[in-house]
Amino acid sequence: MKYKVDLNSDMGENFGPWTIGDNVDKEIMSYISSANIATGFHAGDPNTMSQTIALAKSHGVAIGAHPGFRDLVGFGRRNINIQPQELTNDIIYQLGALREFSTLHQLPLQHIKPHGALYMHLARDQAAAQLFVETLHTLAPNLLLFCLHGSAIWQEAKKIQHPVICEFYGDREYDDSGSIVFIRRMGALDPEQVAKKVLRACQEGKVRTIEGNDITVEFDSICIHSDTPSALALIKRTRERLNQADIHVKSPGIAMT
Amino acid sequence: MKYKVDLNSDMGENFGPWTIGDNVDKEIMSYISSANIATGFHAGDPNTMSQTIALAKSHGVAIGAHPGFRDLVGFGRRNINIQPQELTNDIIYQLGALREFSTLHQLPLQHIKPHGALYMHLARDQAAAQLFVETLHTLAPNLLLFCLHGSAIWQEAKKIQHPVICEFYGDREYDDSGSIVFIRRMGALDPEQVAKKVLRACQEGKVRTIEGNDITVEFDSICIHSDTPSALALIKRTRERLNQADIHVKSPGIAMT
Amino acid sequence: MKYKVDLNSDMGENFGPWTIGDNVDKEIMSYISSANIATGFHAGDPNTMSQTIALAKSHGVAIGAHPGFRDLVGFGRRNINIQPQELTNDIIYQLGALREFSTLHQLPLQHIKPHGALYMHLARDQAAAQLFVETLHTLAPNLLLFCLHGSAIWQEAKKIQHPVICEFYGDREYDDSGSIVFIRRMGALDPEQVAKKVLRACQEGKVRTIEGNDITVEFDSICIHSDTPSALALIKRTRERLNQADIHVKSPGIAMT
Amino acid sequence: MKYKVDLNSDMGENFGPWTIGDNVDKEIMSYISSANIATGFHAGDPNTMSQTIALAKSHGVAIGAHPGFRDLVGFGRRNINIQPQELTNDIIYQLGALREFSTLHQLPLQHIKPHGALYMHLARDQAAAQLFVETLHTLAPNLLLFCLHGSAIWQEAKKIQHPVICEFYGDREYDDSGSIVFIRRMGALDPEQVAKKVLRACQEGKVRTIEGNDITVEFDSICIHSDTPSALALIKRTRERLNQADIHVKSPGIAMT
Repeated sequence: MKYKVDLNSDMGENFGPWTIGDNVDKEIMSYISSANIATGFHAGDPNTMSQTIALAKSHGVAIGAHPGFRDLVGFGRRNINIQPQELTNDIIYQLGALREFSTLHQLPLQHIKPHGALYMHLARDQAAAQLFVETLHTLAPNLLLFCLHGSAIWQEAKKIQHPVICEFYGDREYDDSGSIVFIRRMGALDPEQVAKKVLRACQEGKVRTIEGNDITVEFDSICIHSDTPSALALIKRTRERLNQADIHVKSPGIAMT
Repeated sequence: MKYKVDLNSDMGENFGPWTIGDNVDKEIMSYISSANIATGFHAGDPNTMSQTIALAKSHGVAIGAHPGFRDLVGFGRRNINIQPQELTNDIIYQLGALREFSTLHQLPLQHIKPHGALYMHLARDQAAAQLFVETLHTLAPNLLLFCLHGSAIWQEAKKIQHPVICEFYGDREYDDSGSIVFIRRMGALDPEQVAKKVLRACQEGKVRTIEGNDITVEFDSICIHSDTPSALALIKRTRERLNQADIHVKSPGIAMT
Repeated sequence: MKYKVDLNSDMGENFGPWTIGDNVDKEIMSYISSANIATGFHAGDPNTMSQTIALAKSHGVAIGAHPGFRDLVGFGRRNINIQPQELTNDIIYQLGALREFSTLHQLPLQHIKPHGALYMHLARDQAAAQLFVETLHTLAPNLLLFCLHGSAIWQEAKKIQHPVICEFYGDREYDDSGSIVFIRRMGALDPEQVAKKVLRACQEGKVRTIEGNDITVEFDSICIHSDTPSALALIKRTRERLNQADIHVKSPGIAMT
Repeated sequence: MKYKVDLNSDMGENFGPWTIGDNVDKEIMSYISSANIATGFHAGDPNTMSQTIALAKSHGVAIGAHPGFRDLVGFGRRNINIQPQELTNDIIYQLGALREFSTLHQLPLQHIKPHGALYMHLARDQAAAQLFVETLHTLAPNLLLFCLHGSAIWQEAKKIQHPVICEFYGDREYDDSGSIVFIRRMGALDPEQVAKKVLRACQEGKVRTIEGNDITVEFDSICIHSDTPSALALIKRTRERLNQADIHVKSPGIAMT
């Protein structure tokens, strides 16, 4: 039974003249506590990054870097067969780019969360996860790493005591192994069902899998993707149900040394 | 006084997961006669190009290549200081890419119309215009070139008798020199005013400039941009007013040798 | 025992201001009969494409499209998890772009050969291979498809009788399964050894595998990569040994309907 | 008469698999005191950036960010018509990316120097220069700004007392206005002539213009571009002549608050 939880969503995923999903970052910011800001490789551009940090700051929302594969046209959703060192360098590059804007806006980075196929890659590939986490720990020992409980990247972070925040995916299905069932294009979800699923996860620590069983989920943050159809409705309803259940939505906060 | 006119709009300007403007290509296709299809350098991607040709075909709309500067983030709206040969090669590349999809869908290309800053560049830069037009004429002597009456590219096409279609911009202002007043971000326009302006241009061959004078305009095609706010409403109303005035909206058609 | 064989190499793989390998396209063109020209997604740019076709033409070398994954930084050597339709559209785009330049230079395309990770992907992924080959056959029924004997793409081409040219890789190792052993960075090879290996393949139809066995190889074209270290020496020596053995190096030629 | 001077060159301008010029960063590092490291928009990639910092560190060479226009194919040498805010954001992004690698390698950034067309743009465009310099001063008040004496960016830096290092271009011609004569493709230069020109500039503070007159030059750093043909020979000879004349080649060093 949780009394508080973080609610995160991907923000700043427009690119140049284009928008994604319902283009409702501004509205979503009212309901979340942590924003994962795209850093230019799969989405986002320097203007958008700067504006999104300003928007987060004005809403009191904590910010994190949301690096992805270098694949704009594929939105970072296609796995790329990449070596650990290349992958780590790609993330450092993106992290630094966002950090400079965070310095400019005087809003320090709270966390980092890899995007899409990169998130899944680091959840599975132990060598890549190890090199990335060790490098991250050298660069930013307090930068919270958002990840899946039990994943390769989570294991590597635990080994060197890098601080992690585990996530529960409100808008994705789980299977019996505890993995998220990845689907290429989401259909519309029912806000009430998503909110209930999240609430149950917070209150009972359980989720029903696609196989029809209950599994235990460990998390400190709920993720609902901003490009899921009707994302705003899902996030709004989830936030309302959390509020009604007296579960405080709050970012984990900047870690102290 | 015109009894028929072409109505063109830019189509297929999404990119990867992103949409532009109101994302209403499907609706706009019902009202236009010629579609300028983005070819990947400023917008558009191979999937979008293929789908947009299929969409045009299903609506009986003629298609043309809409090449731009290699500048996704700037949507091809920022001038790039480029040499005539580079510029020409960039256009050939994009033209060929679209032509292959047009072959696949068995819908031949009717025209070519440069996009944004490239359109303006070729309207002004005589050397670039000359090399491009001569190369185009070698490659595709019947491919109609959409351009501004009197512009550099128009002059070069006239010199070698490459077929042109002059355009009237329904959603842009003119100045006394006959130039379009380029603005970075369009505000919303009133559909009725746009339709009236177009109608007057068709019936009287005149447009009121920003300086308050009337100038003569020569054209065979009306352009209304699909990413202008409320583009669909502008195009719909314009089409309705043209219909009511018995001005037949019709593509110029594939030129014959 | 062959009396003639094609010798192909990848050409035009520079990008913008950058060169690759020893930057000796001009010299290599003297020794090969078919050039695979990069089409801009993994290497090559419009200027380079145009210049490379002109260079091939001046040497009497036949040309083909060499499309790759959209991955400049990775040079198309990293597999991308891509859907068959996306992949096919990416290739059509690139094929068309090169074809337009081939029209300009009045040198028709002889063949198409996917590059790097895309080559390997189509050698393995039956669904992607099928959609691509069927689409290719619709678009260009006579465009020779360069591929590996027995691979998925070869099988799909055979099914619909699309003309293929099988390749022997002079600068790569084979394993007992007949697959090429892919390595990320090639070391230097000995020209005499490469030439002997090619000669034996031509004369006996056999190659020694990394496991130490002899396997049969079926091919009509020899490939030596231009970015393999000392590529020029490898190709030159191979060509000399082929000449000495009276094996005529000749492109397969444009297929007739 | 100078007793010490900085010698800077652009480093890390390869991209992915490609190299530029003679690809002799390693050799050049022995002769220079400051390295301008490409930050990925016009050249450079995360791997190259990391390796180049490591290389500089091993040679005791100070490092700076070398941001450019987002134009890989044009190598940042083509002016892009960009708004001051976009331009500034593009630079912040690149600065941060490099800074993260500099943190990783524990070698702090000494300076920033815009590249190519961006350098020229900021030398001329007062509004862009002002916004960029003010933003830079907020972000990094001690980061030395390499620029041309008297240019717009120099003026803006002086206004707010942001520290600058003025440059003398050893491998470029000057005109009577004190401007560098920009040329698209450099021919080969004579090492002895370049070295003499630099020596005279250091000793007499003068350079002969293309019009044949002597003008005064103000500078603390000499720039010789690494992609100028025979760059290594130019830099080596210049360094030797400076050594022989007892002019100490030394980086200005990290500014202290």
